[in-house]
Formats: sequence, C-alpha cells, structure tokens
Amino acid sequence: MKRLSILGSTGSIGKSTIEVIKNHPDKFRVVGLAAKNNVQLLQSQIQLLKPEVVAVFDESAASSLRKMNLPVEILAGEQGLVRVATLNNADMVVSAVVGSAGLVPTYEAVKARKDIALATKEALVMAGSIVISEASKRGVRIIPVDSEHSAVFQCLDGRDISEVEKIILTASGGPFLRKNISELDTITPDDALKHPTWDMGRKISIDSATLMNKGLEVIEACRLFNMPPEKVEVVIHPQSIIHSMVKFIDGSIMAQMSVPDMKGPISYALSYPQRFAEVLPALNLSDVRELTFEAPDMKKHPALSLSYDAIRTGGTMPCVLNAANEIAVEAFLDRRISFTSIPLVVSLTMTEHRVLMADTIEEIIKVSDWAKMKAAEIVESLELGVRGKE
Amino acid sequence: MKRLSILGSTGSIGKSTIEVIKNHPDKFRVVGLAAKNNVQLLQSQIQLLKPEVVAVFDESAASSLRKMNLPVEILAGEQGLVRVATLNNADMVVSAVVGSAGLVPTYEAVKARKDIALATKEALVMAGSIVISEASKRGVRIIPVDSEHSAVFQCLDGRDISEVEKIILTASGGPFLRKNISELDTITPDDALKHPTWDMGRKISIDSATLMNKGLEVIEACRLFNMPPEKVEVVIHPQSIIHSMVKFIDGSIMAQMSVPDMKGPISYALSYPQRFAEVLPALNLSDVRELTFEAPDMKKHPALSLSYDAIRTGGTMPCVLNAANEIAVEAFLDRRISFTSIPLVVSLTMTEHRVLMADTIEEIIKVSDWAKMKAAEIVESLELGVRGKE
Repeated sequence: MKRLSILGSTGSIGKSTIEVIKNHPDKFRVVGLAAKNNVQLLQSQIQLLKPEVVAVFDESAASSLRKMNLPVEILAGEQGLVRVATLNNADMVVSAVVGSAGLVPTYEAVKARKDIALATKEALVMAGSIVISEASKRGVRIIPVDSEHSAVFQCLDGRDISEVEKIILTASGGPFLRKNISELDTITPDDALKHPTWDMGRKISIDSATLMNKGLEVIEACRLFNMPPEKVEVVIHPQSIIHSMVKFIDGSIMAQMSVPDMKGPISYALSYPQRFAEVLPALNLSDVRELTFEAPDMKKHPALSLSYDAIRTGGTMPCVLNAANEIAVEAFLDRRISFTSIPLVVSLTMTEHRVLMADTIEEIIKVSDWAKMKAAEIVESLELGVRGKE
Repeated sequence: MKRLSILGSTGSIGKSTIEVIKNHPDKFRVVGLAAKNNVQLLQSQIQLLKPEVVAVFDESAASSLRKMNLPVEILAGEQGLVRVATLNNADMVVSAVVGSAGLVPTYEAVKARKDIALATKEALVMAGSIVISEASKRGVRIIPVDSEHSAVFQCLDGRDISEVEKIILTASGGPFLRKNISELDTITPDDALKHPTWDMGRKISIDSATLMNKGLEVIEACRLFNMPPEKVEVVIHPQSIIHSMVKFIDGSIMAQMSVPDMKGPISYALSYPQRFAEVLPALNLSDVRELTFEAPDMKKHPALSLSYDAIRTGGTMPCVLNAANEIAVEAFLDRRISFTSIPLVVSLTMTEHRVLMADTIEEIIKVSDWAKMKAAEIVESLELGVRGKE
C-alpha cells in the first residue's frame, strides 16, 4: 500500500492521477490533497478519497471548504501546501501544481524524503540543480510524469547515462505547425487554445503553441537525466504517438509510444518499477498508418532557442526564462500583447538579467520575482507601443 | 576478454561479427571458426584471428585448407562443427550457420554451457522447446542476433514476461509488397533476389519475399520469449527502421530502431549487457521523415499463416514447416516450381505430417529428413504438373 499526497489534485494531472488510483484501491491510499481554489471538486475528492489533510492555496476558498464540515483537516496558503507535501505518513508526493507555485512544496517534499511523481516542470526548470542535488543527497527518487520525460525514463529503464548519446524529445509542433512565420503575429488566444492532440490547461496550451513547453522540457530533461543541452534534441512528430526517445552510443534508438493519454505516464510513475494492466486503450500502428518527423524551425519558434540559451547559460537563467514566460503568456491571454511578443518579452527579460549561481530556493524565488516584475514592465512598454499605434 | 567460437564465419552474419570484433581487439579473442566451404575467406580469417580450431563442413574443402599449412587444427564435417561449438575455452558461441545444419552444433554448444549469440533461426524453429529447456537447465544465455529478436530483447531489457501483452515483429514486406496477389505466380528467382533494404543470402531473400522468414521469426519469438503465438503479431513496416516492438500490459509500446545494419544486433549480442560505441551510423528521423505501418495480407502471404498454424499445432510441426520450406525454396531457385508453389509445397507437406512431441534432437532430425523427402516428392509432382502443361 503506497500512501500518496497529491499536490494539484483538481488540475488535469491531478484528476487523471485519481482515475488511476481508483482502479487500484488495494495499492494506494491518499493521505493528502492540495489544490488552488476549486472547492467543489475538492469536496467530492475528499468524499471519495478520505484524505487526512487538505490544503487550499486561496485563503477564501479554504474558508468556503471549512464551512462544509468535512471530516478532514483543512489548511490554507503555501504553508498548507508544504504541510501536505511533507505529511509524515506519505510515501510519495504527486507534484502537479501548475507554475512556479509548485516549486516550494516540491522542494520541501524532497527534503522530507518523499519520492516524487513530478509533473510540475517548474521545480526543475527554476531550481533544477538545487532540487536534484537535494534528492540525490536524501536518496529520493524523482519519477517524471510528463509524457516526454516518462518516455525517456522508460527507454533508459535503469541503464547507465554514460551509454546515452542523445535524448530526443518529440513535439507535436502545436496548432500552428503549418502556419507561415509571417502569419504568427495575428494569432489570437482562441486560436492558440485549440490544441490538436492533448487536452490541457490554458497556460500549457499557449506554451505548446510557442514551443516554450518543449523548451522547458529540454531544460527539465537536462536536469532530470544529467545531460548537457547539446545532447537533448527536439524533433517534431505531429501524431504524438512516440512520446520521446533515447539514442544510445551504439546507434540504437529506443522509443516509447502509446495513444496520447496522460494516464500512461501517471500510471507508470505510480506503478514503477512494475506496470499496471489496461491503463491505456490499445495502440494499433496499422491503424495509425504513419508516423512523421521533421526538424523544428528555430526561427519560427524563438522560445525553443531561448530555452537552449537559458540552459547553456545555466545558473538562474532558466528561472528567469520561466518567470518571464509566465507573465508573457498571461499578457497574451489577456490580449495585451501579440503571440510573437511572448518570446520577445522573455528574450528582453533575459537580456536584463545578471546570472547568479543561486544555491538556495529563497534566492531562486527572489530572482523569479525580479524576472516577473521586469517582464511585466516590458509587457507594459510593448502594450504602450501597441496603443500608440492604434 | 570474451573467447568466441563463430559458426558460419564466412556467411554474412559471420563476416559482420568479425567486423565488430576487429573494432574491439581488447575485448574478444576468437578461439574457433567453422564454415561450409569458402576456403579462401577462411584462410584470411585464420590469418587475421589466429583461432585454435577451424572446422569445414565439406570434406573436400577441409582437405584444400589443410594443404595451406596454416598454424591451426582443421576439422571436417558436422563433428568438426560440433567440436568448434564446444571448445573448452570458448565462453560464447556465435551460431550463424544457415539452415538446419546449424541445429546440432548449436544444441551441443548449449549442452556444453556456452552462451549463444543466436542467428540461426532453425535451432529454435526445429527444436525450440528442446533447446530452450536445455539452456534454462544449464543456465545458458541465448541472446538473439536477428534484428527483430534483438529489438525485442532490447525492449524487454530484463523486464518480466508477465508484463508483456504482445510482441510486435516488423517486416519490410519484401520486394513484392505492392504486387497484386494475381501477379505473384510469375515471379522469377531474379525478381525475388532483389531485396529492398537488407543485403543477405539467397535462401533468406526468398523467405523474405514469401514472408516465410517472418513466419519463422514468429516461431522463434514464441520459443525465445516464451510467448503463445496469439501474443506475437507481425506488422508491415517497409522502411525497416523500427526493428520490432514490445507492447506492455499498460498499453505502452517500446520500440527499438536504427539504420538497418546487422552490425547493430550482432554488436549488442557481443557487448550485452553493455553497448559498444559508434557501431552504427546515426539515424536521423527528420531525414527519414516517415515510418509507415500496415497489417500483413495473410491471403497474399500464406507462408505467414502456415507458420502460425505450425506453432499453434506445436510439437514437430514447425520443424516440418521449416524443412519443407528449405526444399521448396531450393526448387524455386532452381526454377523447378513457381513462387506461389513454395507455400503450397509447405502446406501439402504439413498436411501429410503426423505431429509428434519429440524430445530428442535425433527425433527432430528424423522428422526433418522425412519432411524434406516428402517435400521433394511434392516438388516433383508439381514439376510434372508444370511440364504436363507445357
């Protein structure tokens, strides 16, 4: 019986996690849940899973939940999330809080020696070296829940990293793969929220359209698998059937594939090193008929090359990239800046940053806050420019 | 330092094996070589590798080699091959003799507790359960050298077979993939010897065109990985980039790919559980652009369904299939029967066979001899039929 805390239980990964757990009631017990503010869904999750502690990030949502008189301890704010992440009787923490809010709870879970099923990219993008060195110091296992990193993890399957020549992350290419570079400027949030293959949140949908999502995954892969950026490659694969690959030194490539469904990687992280039966519908390649591949167009997707720049620079630069991107995406969704301004905001913020070799989470958060402020300023200046033109 | 005997050193697998060994002189020492009759090539291999014992299947070729006064013991006939297969100071035997001649030496090598790098399909097709149970009794490791089985072996990578839902063998589809079923009858040996992707021997080229090769591989996979035939599937994949796949019970598929080159699986069998560096040229999927898949047409390729029939029936039936096919292919290459008569000969021979549960190699050989004789009779009757029509 594995005892779990789920951070981000009302998000798409959280919900899928609970789906998987429901199919294996003999194998898991949920001891803690944490979410942002979806009180209604949390209520039904509490009734279903009977956790001991629940944390709600928003104070007011926590109050609403408390009024329901549920048989569970209800906490609020980041402190509440940290408490759920470090519960004494949790064996593993599913870390699926979207955005930088996931960093501190994930880090505290590692410090508390919880194994991590990691969906929150930000923990490794913002503070990769700190989190990874803490995990290795404390013997904590970090199992990726991203479909790409789970694929790499499955391809490696315990093999020594010295045998790896390259990690090849696949990318669907987003909804604008066939658009011309000149057409990108007029893309609206509505256009960008229609993603071809996966059902996911708004922020990730935009990141998928800019390929920033893939850039963050490159950074995450470097951290998670201890690979230099020149050994992590991206290939566009619109069918999203091969979730990623590992090329070994002998020239052999191992690929992991399945129908695209997050239940696959979630289930693998929970069942590892075993596999559960019948997690995903069967994939029949004769029905799929073809898998195609093409090199990404770095000019069309500056977010990808910015990500490589950030990880090559190292230190606090990936953290700045991530923070600036959060602000830029928000501004795009609010229709304050254009689609092509997203990487521009990121790039300008990175230019303003003086890289540090941060070795505490506090420093990282300070840098992230600085980058958000700086990016907000840049958004504002771009916005003024746009208004000026009107 | 691994000490090797190579059975079939002058064939295509044997030559590639020696290529791999030449790149790792610090890791291997060749103690024995065996071949059919290619004296000239054997001579240069002896000079290069300085083995202790050499066996030549043909007596007259052995005499020719003896006259060259090389500093090596030279043996002849099957007994010679068995001696090379069981040399005291060999750690591993590369079993790459084409056809049923490979069975006895391979079995004797297993009995002598040599690990086997297995390219000779026939050992497992003819006498799979005997060879496998002997190997497991003696703690002998059989590592496949076929690209397909090596791929499966790499995808499994030590995982428990209970987690496997299906083995998916890929097939190039042979040179007549796009031909209509009605066009198959007029195919000549010359047509069939032009194989699109791999460079290989005449027998295997014909087997590849009829898909009997894939059928034999299905049988081999059932034996090697202890899988029932309904869990071994064939998918046509004309690019021959994915060498085979394993579908696990959770719906995840692992695939192994590389440029098509036998040096890949040979090297893996020799280096296992490690991998050697730079064995194959890099595979760039963006250059390949597409991988396609389709279900095999069992009507067009009766050899494939005959193979499934044979392994489902079990006992000596796969042995009969294999022996009848050897005769039929030879007759086709001699222009005595048509291309579509190959599976017909096999099918008619199988119909005549009364299945036994043989548990000695002697019985297997007796059945194989019977099947060859029976198939030869059937060839003759078909030939008379053809002549009758002329």
